[in-house]
Amino acid sequence: MILGQLSRGGAGVRVQRYLLPGSWQGVRGAAVAAGEPLVAGEPREPAVKTQIPGPETKRQYEALSKISPCQSVSVFVDYDKSIGNYQVDVDGNVLLDAFTQISSLPLGYSHPDLISAATSQQNVRTFINRPSLGVFPGADWTQRLKDSLMPLAPPGHTSLTTMACGACSNENAFKAIYIWYRSKERGSKDPTPEELQSAMVNQKPGCTDYALLGFNGSFHGRTMAPLALTHSKAIHKVDIPTLDFPMAPFPMYKYPLEDNVAENEKEDERCLARVEEIMHEYKNKGRPVVGVVIEPIQAEGGDNHGSNEFFQQLQAITKRNGAALLIDEVQTGGGPTGKFWCYEHFNLPESPDILTFSKKMLTGGFFCKEDFRVAQGYRIFNTWMGDPGKVILLQEVLNVIKRDNLLQNTVVSGDILYKGIRELENRFPNVINSTRGKDRGTFIAFNGKDAATRDAIIANMKQKGVQLGGCGDAAVRLRPALIFQPHHANILLDRLEQVLKEF
Amino acid sequence: MILGQLSRGGAGVRVQRYLLPGSWQGVRGAAVAAGEPLVAGEPREPAVKTQIPGPETKRQYEALSKISPCQSVSVFVDYDKSIGNYQVDVDGNVLLDAFTQISSLPLGYSHPDLISAATSQQNVRTFINRPSLGVFPGADWTQRLKDSLMPLAPPGHTSLTTMACGACSNENAFKAIYIWYRSKERGSKDPTPEELQSAMVNQKPGCTDYALLGFNGSFHGRTMAPLALTHSKAIHKVDIPTLDFPMAPFPMYKYPLEDNVAENEKEDERCLARVEEIMHEYKNKGRPVVGVVIEPIQAEGGDNHGSNEFFQQLQAITKRNGAALLIDEVQTGGGPTGKFWCYEHFNLPESPDILTFSKKMLTGGFFCKEDFRVAQGYRIFNTWMGDPGKVILLQEVLNVIKRDNLLQNTVVSGDILYKGIRELENRFPNVINSTRGKDRGTFIAFNGKDAATRDAIIANMKQKGVQLGGCGDAAVRLRPALIFQPHHANILLDRLEQVLKEF
Repeated sequence: MILGQLSRGGAGVRVQRYLLPGSWQGVRGAAVAAGEPLVAGEPREPAVKTQIPGPETKRQYEALSKISPCQSVSVFVDYDKSIGNYQVDVDGNVLLDAFTQISSLPLGYSHPDLISAATSQQNVRTFINRPSLGVFPGADWTQRLKDSLMPLAPPGHTSLTTMACGACSNENAFKAIYIWYRSKERGSKDPTPEELQSAMVNQKPGCTDYALLGFNGSFHGRTMAPLALTHSKAIHKVDIPTLDFPMAPFPMYKYPLEDNVAENEKEDERCLARVEEIMHEYKNKGRPVVGVVIEPIQAEGGDNHGSNEFFQQLQAITKRNGAALLIDEVQTGGGPTGKFWCYEHFNLPESPDILTFSKKMLTGGFFCKEDFRVAQGYRIFNTWMGDPGKVILLQEVLNVIKRDNLLQNTVVSGDILYKGIRELENRFPNVINSTRGKDRGTFIAFNGKDAATRDAIIANMKQKGVQLGGCGDAAVRLRPALIFQPHHANILLDRLEQVLKEF
Repeated sequence: MILGQLSRGGAGVRVQRYLLPGSWQGVRGAAVAAGEPLVAGEPREPAVKTQIPGPETKRQYEALSKISPCQSVSVFVDYDKSIGNYQVDVDGNVLLDAFTQISSLPLGYSHPDLISAATSQQNVRTFINRPSLGVFPGADWTQRLKDSLMPLAPPGHTSLTTMACGACSNENAFKAIYIWYRSKERGSKDPTPEELQSAMVNQKPGCTDYALLGFNGSFHGRTMAPLALTHSKAIHKVDIPTLDFPMAPFPMYKYPLEDNVAENEKEDERCLARVEEIMHEYKNKGRPVVGVVIEPIQAEGGDNHGSNEFFQQLQAITKRNGAALLIDEVQTGGGPTGKFWCYEHFNLPESPDILTFSKKMLTGGFFCKEDFRVAQGYRIFNTWMGDPGKVILLQEVLNVIKRDNLLQNTVVSGDILYKGIRELENRFPNVINSTRGKDRGTFIAFNGKDAATRDAIIANMKQKGVQLGGCGDAAVRLRPALIFQPHHANILLDRLEQVLKEF
């Protein structure tokens, strides 16, 4: 049926080629492999009716811009009509969405199981009685955490703190690092009276001179502390005061990886040596690096990958220097790489010390090892400490991921996408290059030959009915939902081929 | 009816005394003045069955503490049973709640109009399809903002930015200030190439040396920038790195105000002189104070009030020094002072430059004057930029505030509370003092004679069925919902009298 649809569009021949035989598993395996959508009622293919942005988006843009800055708006969306992997805009354009609200929709639009959860009379009071979770948690809160987030804790992580968003998760995870380090230094978890008094007026010893180490190309959020560790786009940072937090280079590999092994190993060594140097430099100037903060894949910064060996050695260096390793899974977490957390791909000897999450997890928060659990109340705290309404929805997301075997779906669809784009890269080497994300589910990217080409690819793909995202200087990133199936991958590849042919 | 109930509790005599005759207005005026609850199904009075915390809270605490730090937990709450002004805990204790989740529930628990809004099929897709509002706003987004938040914009404020929480609202409002100031300095809204490049690596000129000025006793949130301006409790700040943001004294008045006029005027002068001094000091050391950040009433820091003249002169000093005035209405906003925004009490010659909000507003965000609107996309931005699901609930809250005349309710109930507590202060001057919040709705506080007394008052009030909050060194703060009616005020006063008698 899907094949038939696509044939009418002139692309039927390609579809079979991208289907992986035999690797599908799970309850709905056969049906899904045959191209039936996981979300009933999904359109069968994109349908673009106007230039995008269309006239109704332009009209609404004018209206919104009168009351709110909105230069970054792409289109206005009809969320009542959007379903599954398909986003419908106010001009009636139906786009296959492989960007999914900056990678934050785990199950696409209007998933029926989420609609059920949201309209259940059992849940409604949780949606409207938002508690101050740190003081007045609900009767069901502990069980909800046990049923949802705790089974996802990295091995050795005994402590969970919920937060509302990714930046806030990082901000508070950083505090857990400072407090852990300072407790070690003073030999006690309790601050001294002198520390308490001086902290009140932003003075030492209460306010510490600690530094965190970030990486070139990183993105950790827009509030002040994560922003000081963010080095992906100047527009995020310009005009804003910052902190003396050092920046190490992140490996910039040559692709294809298999043809550049020796050179990429040297790149790892260069970056790791610099990490160690910086830690010594900052120790010597009285600003010890107490934590190393890193994304498993630098997403906003260009989908930059580090090798397993890079992460393993980074963990060793961090540990040797007495610092903590925080892995920021805000964009990578929740399944898009084919494992629930991306760091699981790295075969680390032990878990990172802290793992932060948000986006596809719907709630923000962080897991940490017992040593990083803060001993006193109100130190890591805010009014809401997250939102149980989001955890109810997360529970349903996790049920659907298990029931529909969505990590496996992501592995299969990702493999189709990766192989397909690699093939297109071989055919159009002067337009795109550096396809990356092999064995990382649908967390895939490639570069345009330059920024203008990248921008044109994204614009032209949109006009052909596929929503993609940009990142870094010249990268196109794929960030579909976990319900992005092989037949969606084939549509994307088909449209990409059309676009690349036109260059 | 309520009187009868209270009489059975032995307190019927006092009730009449606290009722204000004649000042009630509004559609439901007569019924409400007669003591009928605005929220049907509310209990008629508190009912305490166990020592608080009770055995079931203790059991749940043990379970939660195994997976999440929870030293700050007071009780576990049965949100399905909590209604209106009454919070029901898991041990079946029914408390009149005058703290309302750290002042964040505008309409108390399980308000029927919010239940309707949350279960409406029309709204469900907004609750589950959370957009990236900066890129893909919904078809109804502009109209929702026009119908809800925009009518609340301070005069001259043409720009609204939504955010998820209070800290994030402040973080991003600060950015609007930096960008505004820097644009003035360089004579252009667009950063130079040199600024863009240096910002990427945390260097000048791209990263500025700007400072914001905060006040002793202030609270603006827990992420890094607001935390640097926060000076209310050491436990918020200790062990955490900070910024060189200066702190000015906030007026600490003697009460009753009418007996200490001259002294309090001098206190204003002292604080304002220091503000001006600091601005000159920081300009001279190359860290100009580009913004002054202040709460209209310092809540977390002890419910410290500044006079209208203090705020008027602060605005003049700020303006004279070329800086921006940001008023942080996160706790005061949304009606508890009897006006929608607390700053409206101050008769300022013009609006503050920026106003931030959250808590009772359900969504965070900020309003600002046109000059503070950022001209380029993605500078003030994050994945979600708030949550339309919260704005749907806010719309309903605003409808109910209007329909039920809740600002007037807050004025009337607040007047009863203020006069009642002043009377109790006169009767028990060795136990409590410094009642404050006259003509500020229910935003009222008083001090215990010391911290231990304050803590005992709160604990004993809880045991008698009334939930209050602490703040500052020795203050008790009242933060009820907008549906807190005269008969609730009388119950609170009755219980407070009982508690004070026992000292």
